[in-house]
Amino acid sequence: MKNNPILVAGEWRAADAVDEFRPFNPSTGEHLDAVYPVSSWQDCDAALNAAASAQVQLRQLSRDTLGDFLEAFASEIEKARAKLVEMAALETGLAPSPRLADVEIPRTTMQLRQAAQACRQASWCQATIDSQNNIRSVLQAIGPVAVFGPNNFPFAFGSISGGDFAAAIAAGNPVIAKAHPSHPGTTRLLAELAHRASEQCGLPVGTIQMIYAMSNESGLKLVSDARIGATAFTGSRAAGLALKTAADGTGKPIYLELSSLNPVILLPGALAERAEAIVDEFTTSCVVAAGQLCTKPGLMVVPTGFVGDKFVAQVAAKFDQAAVGTLLSPHGAEQILQISSDLVAAGAQLLTASVAQPGQTENPARFCCANTLLEVSAAGFIAEADTFQREMFGNASLVIRSESVEQIAAVIAKLEGNLTGCIYSHSADEDEVDYQIIEPLLRAKVGRLLNDKMPTGVLVSSAMNHGGPYPASGHPGFSAVGMPGAIKRFAALKCFDNIRQSRLPDLLQDKNPGKDIWRYIDGRYTTEDVA
Amino acid sequence: MKNNPILVAGEWRAADAVDEFRPFNPSTGEHLDAVYPVSSWQDCDAALNAAASAQVQLRQLSRDTLGDFLEAFASEIEKARAKLVEMAALETGLAPSPRLADVEIPRTTMQLRQAAQACRQASWCQATIDSQNNIRSVLQAIGPVAVFGPNNFPFAFGSISGGDFAAAIAAGNPVIAKAHPSHPGTTRLLAELAHRASEQCGLPVGTIQMIYAMSNESGLKLVSDARIGATAFTGSRAAGLALKTAADGTGKPIYLELSSLNPVILLPGALAERAEAIVDEFTTSCVVAAGQLCTKPGLMVVPTGFVGDKFVAQVAAKFDQAAVGTLLSPHGAEQILQISSDLVAAGAQLLTASVAQPGQTENPARFCCANTLLEVSAAGFIAEADTFQREMFGNASLVIRSESVEQIAAVIAKLEGNLTGCIYSHSADEDEVDYQIIEPLLRAKVGRLLNDKMPTGVLVSSAMNHGGPYPASGHPGFSAVGMPGAIKRFAALKCFDNIRQSRLPDLLQDKNPGKDIWRYIDGRYTTEDVA
Repeated sequence: MKNNPILVAGEWRAADAVDEFRPFNPSTGEHLDAVYPVSSWQDCDAALNAAASAQVQLRQLSRDTLGDFLEAFASEIEKARAKLVEMAALETGLAPSPRLADVEIPRTTMQLRQAAQACRQASWCQATIDSQNNIRSVLQAIGPVAVFGPNNFPFAFGSISGGDFAAAIAAGNPVIAKAHPSHPGTTRLLAELAHRASEQCGLPVGTIQMIYAMSNESGLKLVSDARIGATAFTGSRAAGLALKTAADGTGKPIYLELSSLNPVILLPGALAERAEAIVDEFTTSCVVAAGQLCTKPGLMVVPTGFVGDKFVAQVAAKFDQAAVGTLLSPHGAEQILQISSDLVAAGAQLLTASVAQPGQTENPARFCCANTLLEVSAAGFIAEADTFQREMFGNASLVIRSESVEQIAAVIAKLEGNLTGCIYSHSADEDEVDYQIIEPLLRAKVGRLLNDKMPTGVLVSSAMNHGGPYPASGHPGFSAVGMPGAIKRFAALKCFDNIRQSRLPDLLQDKNPGKDIWRYIDGRYTTEDVA
Repeated sequence: MKNNPILVAGEWRAADAVDEFRPFNPSTGEHLDAVYPVSSWQDCDAALNAAASAQVQLRQLSRDTLGDFLEAFASEIEKARAKLVEMAALETGLAPSPRLADVEIPRTTMQLRQAAQACRQASWCQATIDSQNNIRSVLQAIGPVAVFGPNNFPFAFGSISGGDFAAAIAAGNPVIAKAHPSHPGTTRLLAELAHRASEQCGLPVGTIQMIYAMSNESGLKLVSDARIGATAFTGSRAAGLALKTAADGTGKPIYLELSSLNPVILLPGALAERAEAIVDEFTTSCVVAAGQLCTKPGLMVVPTGFVGDKFVAQVAAKFDQAAVGTLLSPHGAEQILQISSDLVAAGAQLLTASVAQPGQTENPARFCCANTLLEVSAAGFIAEADTFQREMFGNASLVIRSESVEQIAAVIAKLEGNLTGCIYSHSADEDEVDYQIIEPLLRAKVGRLLNDKMPTGVLVSSAMNHGGPYPASGHPGFSAVGMPGAIKRFAALKCFDNIRQSRLPDLLQDKNPGKDIWRYIDGRYTTEDVA
């Protein structure tokens, strides 16, 4: 088998390989018939040089050209939908339909088109003009962005097609995409489409580059290199923290999405009012996509007592009945089994079947594990909060039984930063006193607070926050999802002091270069010209 | 002598001191008659606990109350102006007038009042509403902020009165201020005024706290503590980087202002057109406040040849003629002498008097050093760019002689990130070709680009960027000066998904709670209610 080529400096060429790897088919547990190279530092270095050159040329490019590219790429993805879905299903085990073809592809193309719109409109640049003093500032490209995508969304969070990619390009930066080793073939197909669209639109050579893999050492060098502007990483906590340390060391912004337990707090009034509906909502939210979602509820706080007991028993039964999804890698089941056994050792009780169930499926070696529900007392959780806060990335969750609102508060006090936190309460006022005690505590620990709604399903909305306090993300001020906000992560603030009109970027000239560009002029948002 | 008290948890009390120190009078070189404690970790811990409690209560406080506090504090500063100026002049050697009384005090009170206005108006919060999906987000307090102020602006950048303090409070956070050891008495006076104003306005106990000093180890613990929201640091590169490493390690945002050379590029047309005026502007910008300004031009690129030679000779003569200012600490002169001698060893030529001139003044031991100008060829600079980029924090600067625009470009390529960069060019089009080559390169390296204007004098403007690429600051997306932008550093993005109107913060409810609050609703900035 021949190694797949990488995309560097506008060319598909053989990698300078230091190693190679073969991806799995999670539905069969077997290796796929394809080999991908692990690049040397030389490949990374070449990509950095090409990206640095592209950055200079991108400055001259119109916003419309970047918008055209993002839209052309979205159209290419739609045209290649069948091929993309086939490859992604093979590499990830995710269902071709509805998941890949009807949910993730449309989300991906929508994100690209929303990024295109934000790029053309340019209001995200927050052009700010002090007309009296002729001081003006605007957000502009930060420099080449390295994107490390996760395993669980090959398209929508993919390193060369997802939200980080779209945001980095919309801000005017070249992207160096690192494929995830679980779906390199899908990433290659996407890179081909992106490359074709970039050639159609005349983007500078080196704007779009893709490498399958590199050594850990090269990864650390990449994110801390002087030629890099910023990095986006979604994936495991250990890998993300290593990259963060390297990037921090040279003052390079790195936006991380590391791990999150997404606690759900069930208040007594909601339990009394609509337990059955919540059993269904919670179970679905835990087992959909085999629980391999960054906002899967990994913790649920349920009142002690008879009604709570019944609720938990129903959830456990539903978990046992629900179809068992395919995990993305052989490590998934191992990790869930390891952590759940650690939780049991620490005092948790296993409420569902405890072993992987490969024999139940058509392919006995399929990557999977039983839907897993554990339970621990609030006191038990509080006593070993670190142990009980390890994320099980898959179809597993932990119920915490709490005796009082004070105990809920004590549980929340032990939580790390999370992407989301959710409170289910009575539809009228019955839980209001408890809510007002709990809400400020949970609010401080999460990026997105939900009421009466499970956290899975991260809408692409301008008001979304897919981020939160560390370690949910690397900076609590930014969202990884939602245009135009997500674009701002890949921009630097640039001030122009006493600069002639003809030398100013068009967004800062007296005349507004578009008809719907919002600018902040002398303390007021307006789409008008400087008076 | 009795140790001065610290302000912790609403009380002026004796520190748990592990050591003590006495500040200098830079004008005489003698110690002042006052002793200040170096606090133990216990003091820091007590302050963190009080700040965490205050944070919970601040959530309930109205924006108007915070605004009232900032304005009341500004008024207290004005009432105490004479006393503040007297103490600051004693501790810093800065001129009582105009510098302290007529420039820095008004800047300080203006910043506090602008922060108050931004706090009341709340447009900085960027309330964003997706009305169709009932997803809403807003910037809110990030948590207790530790502020480490610099030595050079006891009021305007002071840890308990300056821009970082004002911004952190306006965002709704408690502040733990660490005094700078060069002006602890001034900081105590300011803390007393802030404390009085906070009691008048009913701020929660623990909102305003002040510690004079702590061990390096305690400083590292403080900025990385779980109870901290963020840190602002202005000061030396070594101390700032140590704090950054600690804060990064626990994912705590830290905003730094470390060092900057503020390169000025003089193009041939400007030199031919108005050399004399530029000689004056440059000299003034280098020697004002004894050059102890973060935006002092520490590098100037001047063309080789006869006209450039004459220009440099005139600057050197002006440097020798100009009054020699007082440095803030005994280390100032040592550092300038050390670095300038290193530069000479690396090939630079000293163009001015080379030694400190204490004997010339009324107080022979006054902290000072001759106005110092050095020169090096562009090739020399490029060959040892690290050596030539050490900041001389004081009345010293380095001229780089460049033979061509290509050589200027090569010099810029070697520069680290800077707060500012400046290009002087012909008032008509004579330098336009060179400008268009140079500008993109310099633009990428600086936070604020200036034309035909020296960088000292950082206007408090909504369009200002006092920040820039690392190591000028810790994140290139934010400015430390200018309301409301500077406030955003101390805020976290908080999303509310599917939350009832009555449970939403007022800024996210359908009804706009003020008449001039800008919100981003369904893709449009507006001061109106949700339709």
